[in-house]
Amino acid sequence: MDPEGATGGQAGKARRHEGKAKVVFGGPEPGTLLLEFKDEATAFDGKKRETIPGKGPLNRDISAALFRYLEERGIPTHFLEAVGEREMVVRELQMIPLEVVVRNVAAGSLSRRLGLPEGQELPFPVVELYWKNDPLGDPLVNDSHVAVLGLASQEEVDEMRRQALEVNRLLSAFFRERGMILVDFKLEFGRDGEGRLVLGDEVSPDTCRLWDARTREILDKDRFRRDLGGLIEAYARVRERVR
Amino acid sequence: MDPEGATGGQAGKARRHEGKAKVVFGGPEPGTLLLEFKDEATAFDGKKRETIPGKGPLNRDISAALFRYLEERGIPTHFLEAVGEREMVVRELQMIPLEVVVRNVAAGSLSRRLGLPEGQELPFPVVELYWKNDPLGDPLVNDSHVAVLGLASQEEVDEMRRQALEVNRLLSAFFRERGMILVDFKLEFGRDGEGRLVLGDEVSPDTCRLWDARTREILDKDRFRRDLGGLIEAYARVRERVR
Repeated sequence: MDPEGATGGQAGKARRHEGKAKVVFGGPEPGTLLLEFKDEATAFDGKKRETIPGKGPLNRDISAALFRYLEERGIPTHFLEAVGEREMVVRELQMIPLEVVVRNVAAGSLSRRLGLPEGQELPFPVVELYWKNDPLGDPLVNDSHVAVLGLASQEEVDEMRRQALEVNRLLSAFFRERGMILVDFKLEFGRDGEGRLVLGDEVSPDTCRLWDARTREILDKDRFRRDLGGLIEAYARVRERVR
Repeated sequence: MDPEGATGGQAGKARRHEGKAKVVFGGPEPGTLLLEFKDEATAFDGKKRETIPGKGPLNRDISAALFRYLEERGIPTHFLEAVGEREMVVRELQMIPLEVVVRNVAAGSLSRRLGLPEGQELPFPVVELYWKNDPLGDPLVNDSHVAVLGLASQEEVDEMRRQALEVNRLLSAFFRERGMILVDFKLEFGRDGEGRLVLGDEVSPDTCRLWDARTREILDKDRFRRDLGGLIEAYARVRERVR
């Protein structure tokens, strides 16, 4: 047992991995991890990066609130508890290296790929799989690519797609009630000790596109991607509305 | 009725459409079309192009032989008869603007997308859908993109995938018996008057990757894409072996 326990201080904990937005440490109990949400923002496969003081704690808070909401409604997530200012204790998962993207409104790479004007509502949600592979630029993949690469079984792909659509149904309603439009979002899943699929990573304005329902103001990481400024103010407004 | 009838002369027939590799005319009977196979070769979304005298007749002959083979084995195709030197009478279809690609060996865009070495055998066939859209560069799409774009129903997508895999099974065996490896190929489907899916377009070394099984010599349009020369000789060897 780590003497720091659940207080969230990561001093003395084994650093497992540093990602673009989070550092992963061993957690307070076996089978748990401690995620530290960084202030660093990156975009365009890491080619654009900046430190935005205060982003980490905001994303931690928003992500914790959304995981709690989803867990209470039957979506298994890795979330256990928020600790300290920018940390979260989670169940350790064997992560599947896929990004599962759900889209309700055309934006970003979907607009570019299909030539759809940004902001066009889609007649039904689009689900996409991207292989998490930095050197290859996180390519769009289909079920047969996933199979050939051995990333997940077809049953897991079907189940991720089903859960992602259910998360979309739940979060779209959640944000709608709070005056926001869930344009799109990215999920990552892992397998727990029993091989069950569990939602991992984070769900935050770094991984969602969120617009103000009335003003269409952008409340997500596109503020950074497009140099719009006001990222902290926007994320703070999201936190205010989801707590 | 057109006085030219089934003689294949396209003089006087209404020109419907000119594609990169074929010209489409009204056919000798209502509900039929006459396809003229051109000598023009194009690659890289039409950015590279060249006239290679003799390519059209070779592709017509090979395509006719492959359509006959497939039709006899239960795959509905648009092929009716070969006429003249470079023409083919086909059933008119309402074409679905998708390219259905099946791959047995990594090559071309799959190698680039997934970082797989060219020539690596795949553990099972990969099936991909590309939206035929020149301005967008024929993007890879998944089932939900197809649905949102209204290009085909899910039932049609499933049936195209099923038929493409059956075509792969048949053609892989056909080429193997003739000393060639079917690396990958592209199919296009359309709907007939009753809404049934029918294989259209062409099946030729312009739309397949074919390697000599013994020498691994390239016998397809990659000879043009990569400036290897000897395209006509290679296509003539394919025709020799498939007749």
